[in-house]
Amino acid sequence: MNAYKLLTPGPLTTTDTVKREMLVDRCTWDDDYKAVTQKIRRQLLELAHVSADDYTAVLMQGSGTFGVESVLTSVVGEEDKVLICSNGAYGVRMTEICARSRVPYVHYAQNYDKVPDAARVARLLEEDPAITHVAMVHSETTSGILNDIQSVGKVVRDAGRTFIVDAMSSFGGVDIPAADWGIDFLVSSANKCIQGVPGFSFILCRREKLLKSEGKARSLSLDLLDQWRGMEKDGKWRFTSPTHVVLAFSRALDELAQEGGIPARSRRYAENNRLLIEKMRAMGLP
Amino acid sequence: MNAYKLLTPGPLTTTDTVKREMLVDRCTWDDDYKAVTQKIRRQLLELAHVSADDYTAVLMQGSGTFGVESVLTSVVGEEDKVLICSNGAYGVRMTEICARSRVPYVHYAQNYDKVPDAARVARLLEEDPAITHVAMVHSETTSGILNDIQSVGKVVRDAGRTFIVDAMSSFGGVDIPAADWGIDFLVSSANKCIQGVPGFSFILCRREKLLKSEGKARSLSLDLLDQWRGMEKDGKWRFTSPTHVVLAFSRALDELAQEGGIPARSRRYAENNRLLIEKMRAMGLP
Repeated sequence: MNAYKLLTPGPLTTTDTVKREMLVDRCTWDDDYKAVTQKIRRQLLELAHVSADDYTAVLMQGSGTFGVESVLTSVVGEEDKVLICSNGAYGVRMTEICARSRVPYVHYAQNYDKVPDAARVARLLEEDPAITHVAMVHSETTSGILNDIQSVGKVVRDAGRTFIVDAMSSFGGVDIPAADWGIDFLVSSANKCIQGVPGFSFILCRREKLLKSEGKARSLSLDLLDQWRGMEKDGKWRFTSPTHVVLAFSRALDELAQEGGIPARSRRYAENNRLLIEKMRAMGLP
Repeated sequence: MNAYKLLTPGPLTTTDTVKREMLVDRCTWDDDYKAVTQKIRRQLLELAHVSADDYTAVLMQGSGTFGVESVLTSVVGEEDKVLICSNGAYGVRMTEICARSRVPYVHYAQNYDKVPDAARVARLLEEDPAITHVAMVHSETTSGILNDIQSVGKVVRDAGRTFIVDAMSSFGGVDIPAADWGIDFLVSSANKCIQGVPGFSFILCRREKLLKSEGKARSLSLDLLDQWRGMEKDGKWRFTSPTHVVLAFSRALDELAQEGGIPARSRRYAENNRLLIEKMRAMGLP
């Protein structure tokens, strides 16, 4: 059905079967629709190799930025302080979110072509005991650089702080064992590596830390804990959800499993990347 | 394609042609896609009988509540105060938004079966010169009551205040000449009377008042003026837009025009309502 292939990191070209899921209107109150939300939430936890005892998944209306803002403004309280490690536009955007919503933060700005350094993060945490959270981007879409969230996660956990990761353009395409890597909140979106269509983001949350965020949210629409409470009951979103987009995403998750899960998708992306570079080089492009 | 008809006020059953628009993936950066956003913005102004010199349309990711929060937290400053007139859950939700985001407000709570009274609003504005904005719901979806925004709008304009209307389940189904009725900000959503699918809301703004909101927004994602600035340039949304939902909405607007516009749709809804009551009565339902 598409006139061209999208080579953007997302929204990207989805399968016709994913798009065809959108040919049905669903009622947001119906049990069958709520069951779709619950199925998605379970599948997301499996993709991150975490148990439902320790983690829980929350879906949030809006783009990925809405999801990132939801976490930063819902879990970092007024008495807390978040260390934002950036090396590109999406890391910098976290500082803009915090500045606007008056979330206390400090900024460790790394060069665009370097990854934030775990030893440096460790030092910053040691020097400033007021820092309660650390936030960083995994795959900085603007440069394509993949940050070492595993090493930083270890440092953050060892220092007893909370780790927030924006895994927008990596989750589903790169394997991320969230618990093993010490990630407490991981944000991604429907329209990246899981290959759904755009319309919502999702957040994997360590239950214990989510529950501790009580009373901290600065927005009603983006209140992460409130959104979770509604959804946890029976899969009903607090406010109108993008039903068609949700159905498409459910199908996209099934197709990811059919492809062989994240390892298979990761291999395909790497192979596409290799081919693209090889053919472009053959065309004489530097 | 649907197993059943949705009788909910929205999301509702949309036409197959509207849904089929979602079978194409679009790039958020492409001119043809940005042109769709611009076309939608123009059509929305026409539906509200306002000129592009005085008004402008902004599309916002998320549900209707996100749109309402966007307006309240972007245009009512810390030195301002909004009078919220409620007679149902959606009016009350405005107070929750303001409480959470620390937007100064006072609450005029009317009974569920009565409409907020324009004379009472006039008195409240006279008694409290600190009130700068008045906000109310047009069609209170929870009870089905249609509030008299025309009379309240006149009072608000006469008192030199700014009028914010949540026209979620009325705009497109009930004719609202926004300028004539003194409405400065009107919020509605893709999945109500215009009969698109859920995924974003839209706001019609009096330009002059929108521009005066500079520096007031409490959220990056829901910053109305910022969203407008991006969109006004060339139709590009600041953050990833729900492309498929946007295409469906564009088609839904065209189908509204084909049906004969708001007057024809309004007649059809009234006739459906009459039939529903008549047949249910014949079935012995009170």
